Amino acid sequence: MIVIADISMSLDGFVTGPDPGPDSGLGRDGEGIHDWVMKADDVDRAILEEITAATGAVVMGRKLFDVIDGPHGWNDEMGYGADQVGTPPFFVVTHEPPASVRLGLDFTFVTGGVADAVAAAGAAAGDRPVVIMGGGDVIRQAVESGLVDELRIHLSPLVLGEGTPLFGPGLRADFDIAEVRPSANATHITYRTRSPEP
Amino acid sequence: MIVIADISMSLDGFVTGPDPGPDSGLGRDGEGIHDWVMKADDVDRAILEEITAATGAVVMGRKLFDVIDGPHGWNDEMGYGADQVGTPPFFVVTHEPPASVRLGLDFTFVTGGVADAVAAAGAAAGDRPVVIMGGGDVIRQAVESGLVDELRIHLSPLVLGEGTPLFGPGLRADFDIAEVRPSANATHITYRTRSPEP
Repeated sequence: MIVIADISMSLDGFVTGPDPGPDSGLGRDGEGIHDWVMKADDVDRAILEEITAATGAVVMGRKLFDVIDGPHGWNDEMGYGADQVGTPPFFVVTHEPPASVRLGLDFTFVTGGVADAVAAAGAAAGDRPVVIMGGGDVIRQAVESGLVDELRIHLSPLVLGEGTPLFGPGLRADFDIAEVRPSANATHITYRTRSPEP
Repeated sequence: MIVIADISMSLDGFVTGPDPGPDSGLGRDGEGIHDWVMKADDVDRAILEEITAATGAVVMGRKLFDVIDGPHGWNDEMGYGADQVGTPPFFVVTHEPPASVRLGLDFTFVTGGVADAVAAAGAAAGDRPVVIMGGGDVIRQAVESGLVDELRIHLSPLVLGEGTPLFGPGLRADFDIAEVRPSANATHITYRTRSPEP
């Protein structure tokens, strides 16, 4: 099973601005982090299509689910490649499943933590990769737990000054650079987790 | 006058590990930030040579000067392209000039702040760019003061977890991506300060 963590980040390491939530998914002034999705050029569009087409199953955190399933979130025709390739099954890491779900997508709520959600997603993904799409805390936990094979960062050319950090204090990790694809709106970098030296 | 801020940074935004100083310039476990200089491949080497050859004058902060002029710092034959193109004049932002200088390079100590140092460097640089080489606080002040035309980040593929942040809290800045050059050791990105929209 290949596990890919895929997230957009500002140059100063934030994945949202301050106060993210169902009413403003990316937080105050955080929209620029996703400019590469909203203003996509050919490179950006190809990257979006490739990752959504290749995804076997998705893992996400509860806060991200609440944004996506919230009033300003996805609809059944849009979101995660639905308009192009259909949607994969989604596994949501949560303490308690929600009372109801708005979207007609294939959501499974996993209460055992990130590793359990990745395992469940792996079982559903067949021979395709599991993609962890956020939020920052879920990706951080997955990196810390050694679950992540590839970290794909879409690096936006802006400095936010505050928000939700992807890595937060205390995490130490080394990567190899597998691929860099520049667009007008972001620098798309694929990192591969470096195996400990023998 | 073109002002270029040029610095190496970890993926989580640190320009040194914790406790940088004359005895460990890049702080604890911070050496990896400069792997692209120490293990330079052809791309890295070309970038190093281009920037040093093009530099008209250099601005640096006092802490960085203390590292460079310290016992484990540069020598007169090495450091900032000395072995290839000779060294430019250096302008050091400081509250109080040091009692003595070890290196036989052209240092000027400027007590008026970053803007004064950049102006003095500009006068010495002729028609070549002024390069601000750090540390993080000097680059941050220069970006905040609108002094920087180009920000060149050498993005290392490692997460440090602690250290000296380049941007720190509260700074908001938008850039255009001017150039991306991937190497095996770092992603070299040139950002251009975005003019406010009319």
